[in-house]
Formats: sequence, C-alpha cells, structure tokens
Amino acid sequence: MTGTLYGVGVGPGDPELLTLKAARLLAAVPVVAYPAPLEGCGMARTIAAAHIPAGRTEIAIRMGFTADRAGTEAAYDRGAAAIAIHLEQGRDVALLCEGDPLLFGSFIYVLARLGERFPVVVVPGVTSPLAAAAALQFPLAAWNDRVAVIPASRSEAEIEALLAAVDAAAIMKVGRHLPKLRRILGRLGLDGHYIERVGLPDQRILSLEAAEAGGAPYFSIILVHRRGKAWL
Amino acid sequence: MTGTLYGVGVGPGDPELLTLKAARLLAAVPVVAYPAPLEGCGMARTIAAAHIPAGRTEIAIRMGFTADRAGTEAAYDRGAAAIAIHLEQGRDVALLCEGDPLLFGSFIYVLARLGERFPVVVVPGVTSPLAAAAALQFPLAAWNDRVAVIPASRSEAEIEALLAAVDAAAIMKVGRHLPKLRRILGRLGLDGHYIERVGLPDQRILSLEAAEAGGAPYFSIILVHRRGKAWL
Repeated sequence: MTGTLYGVGVGPGDPELLTLKAARLLAAVPVVAYPAPLEGCGMARTIAAAHIPAGRTEIAIRMGFTADRAGTEAAYDRGAAAIAIHLEQGRDVALLCEGDPLLFGSFIYVLARLGERFPVVVVPGVTSPLAAAAALQFPLAAWNDRVAVIPASRSEAEIEALLAAVDAAAIMKVGRHLPKLRRILGRLGLDGHYIERVGLPDQRILSLEAAEAGGAPYFSIILVHRRGKAWL
Repeated sequence: MTGTLYGVGVGPGDPELLTLKAARLLAAVPVVAYPAPLEGCGMARTIAAAHIPAGRTEIAIRMGFTADRAGTEAAYDRGAAAIAIHLEQGRDVALLCEGDPLLFGSFIYVLARLGERFPVVVVPGVTSPLAAAAALQFPLAAWNDRVAVIPASRSEAEIEALLAAVDAAAIMKVGRHLPKLRRILGRLGLDGHYIERVGLPDQRILSLEAAEAGGAPYFSIILVHRRGKAWL
C-alpha cells in the first residue's frame, strides 16, 4: 500500500480562507510539503501554520526567487524524490499551494513527476483574483460575461488583444509591468482597479497612479470590467 | 447601528469546500439569505446546511429556472428589500452563493441594490472551474499561461476567437451547447475534458461523445489546454 499524494490549496493569504477539507487533511496527514525560498518556510506554509500539528515531517521544496526554468525543474525533481520516499512507505503527503493547486500551483510540477506512480487527490482552493474581487467589492462577472486571467508578463500586444476579446479580466503579478498595463488600459478606455498583497496584513488598495509612483510589488493584481466597476 | 451584509461563497458543491471563514460567519449571523427555486431551498442552502444553526431567520430569494431578465431583477428587488429590513434593524445578514459571490454569483445583484446603504464584507469561495480541474486532475495553467472562463451560451464565433487567444479555458454551463462546442474544438484541434455536476453525489466524468449521446446537463464544464492535458 502506497500513500496518497494530496495537492492542497490553502487560499490566497488569509488563513481563514482555507477550506474545511484542507484543515481536516492537514490535521491527519503525517507528511507536509511546500514550496519555500532558500531560507524560511514560504507563504503556503505560513498560511496553513495553525493547522499543521507539531512534530509532523516537513519537506521544504526550496528554490531562489530568481531561479530560471532549469533551476526550478531541478528543485521540483529533488522535492518529488523526497515526497516519493514517504509515499512508497505508505505515508500520505500533503503538498501545500497558495491559492489553488492547479492554477499556477507548485502542485502541477509534482503531479507531472509522481501522478502516474501514486494515488492523487486534489483539494481546490480560493484563488487570489477572487480574493482581490472580494476586497475591492468588484463584481468580476455576471450573466454571460467572458473573463480572462492574464499574467502581466505577457507582451503588450498579447494583453491588449485578449482584453479586447473579453468582458472582464484579472491581470496577475503586475509589479514592474504596471507602466505597460496603464498604456494598454488607456488605449482601450478601461478603468483598472488595483490591489497589492491581497489578504495579507499589509494589503493595500491604490489608484494606478499611486501604485506606479510607489513601485508596485510582484504580488499585485488589476481587475477590469468592460462596463466599469458598478456595472449592473 | 445597521447590520453588515456578508456575501458568502459556499464553494462548488462539496460541503467540505466551505472556507473556515464562511463556517464561522454562518454560525454567528442571525439571518441567512440564499437564491432558491420556486419550491425547495436551492443548491447554496443545501451545500451550507450543516453550518446553519436551527432557528435562524431565513430569506429565500425565489425565482423560476426559466425566469427572464425582468423576472430575475424583480426577484432580486424583493430579496434585497427583505434583507434591508434586517440590516436596518442592526442584524447581520449572510447571503449564500454557490462558488464565489462575485463570479456569476447572486450576491452581485444584491450588492448593486444595497451596497451604498450598508456595510459589506465579501468572503470569496472555491469556484466550479477549479473544482472541475481538481476532479479531472487537469492542470489549468502554469508559467505565464492565459486562461479564459467562457459561458457556453456565447456565439460559436465568439468562443472560437477567444479559445484561439488563450492557452487554457474553462467552458461553463455546457448543456445543450455541446454540439457547437465540439465543432469549435475540432476546428482548433483541442481536446475537451468534460465533467458534469462537479462535487455533487452524481458527478460524472465522460468523453465528449458520451456526454453528447446522453444529453449534457446545464451544470457541466469542459476544460481545455492548448498543450493537451499532460502538458508539462
């Protein structure tokens, strides 16, 4: 009997946005894994901290913030190997992911390595675009609206074309791309609603102007709707 | 002192996918509201049932499944008026929504009516596209993928153009639109991964062929990724 690999979404930042299922699993599994920086325990582990009993085996999948794709792949190779040892010996492992495991989640890379060999259960989580919508009280979509989730690192032409093809969008990881995004929104006549570090103690809602003046951090999101914010 | 209006996402169907925050609020608020059909208590109330203490005041916002826009607006007018009476008298009200309150959620229509008059708090929830991804073990997006959420009721040309402009998509409320969607996916060379009634006891994963032969229900989702399912 091998163990089961659980991909567990822990939500966007607020520890209360864990699901009941995530909390139940974390109380039960003997091994907890999570992505982490080179030192410290990382955001997913921090969000879930209150639900990880003392004395659990923990596997930190460490990678530098500036790791390139090869470095990232090597880190997941090492992490998957460490997880596999426990699964082979019949111990369940929960891999924690900020937000949801299958929407930009670290779990995807471990699933690709271990999904054929072990039973897998995925526990979905609350994602940061919807936490941003909640904090901004911004209705993202109704009726038959089309919605896009767009990484801000895409090219100016790609983002502009996609925004023109949908009714609403969440633009993720704004950071240093904010000047480019402001140009696009200006050309399309769209109002962008900005929030940074959603759900964390230092969350801030700013105008695009103020965000650009202050230097937007990597964890920042812009929400837009073709009909503006109060569009009903 | 007026009461606070809470928009509470109860997740896509599995009662364990409520957040800790939703469960805590439902134990505390004196009034619970929810969308409901003409008879019975509706899906959001059913999902959250275990967390609603006996004896709470309940407001069912009733509308027929086939209500047109005017009928829907009238139902929300009545629901908002009933909720406002409690808020004016200082009682907090939680409005339950399947999935997330601000992504195709009933809460949007009540927010539009009461948001200027009362304090509002939104509790985001797990959405059905991500519950579908979890059940199908389908990695929806990684790296800098662009993702779309597309109502199946959009026109054939609109859906085809948007699928061609993104890396991945969740097509919602497939139902009777399945033949149209199969034509689009065929032309674009995309594999569609189908699930119906995700998270409910009668959830089913089927091939597109089998789903069309059996008659897809309204609550059905197709996930696609430009690079296929196992694309890492």
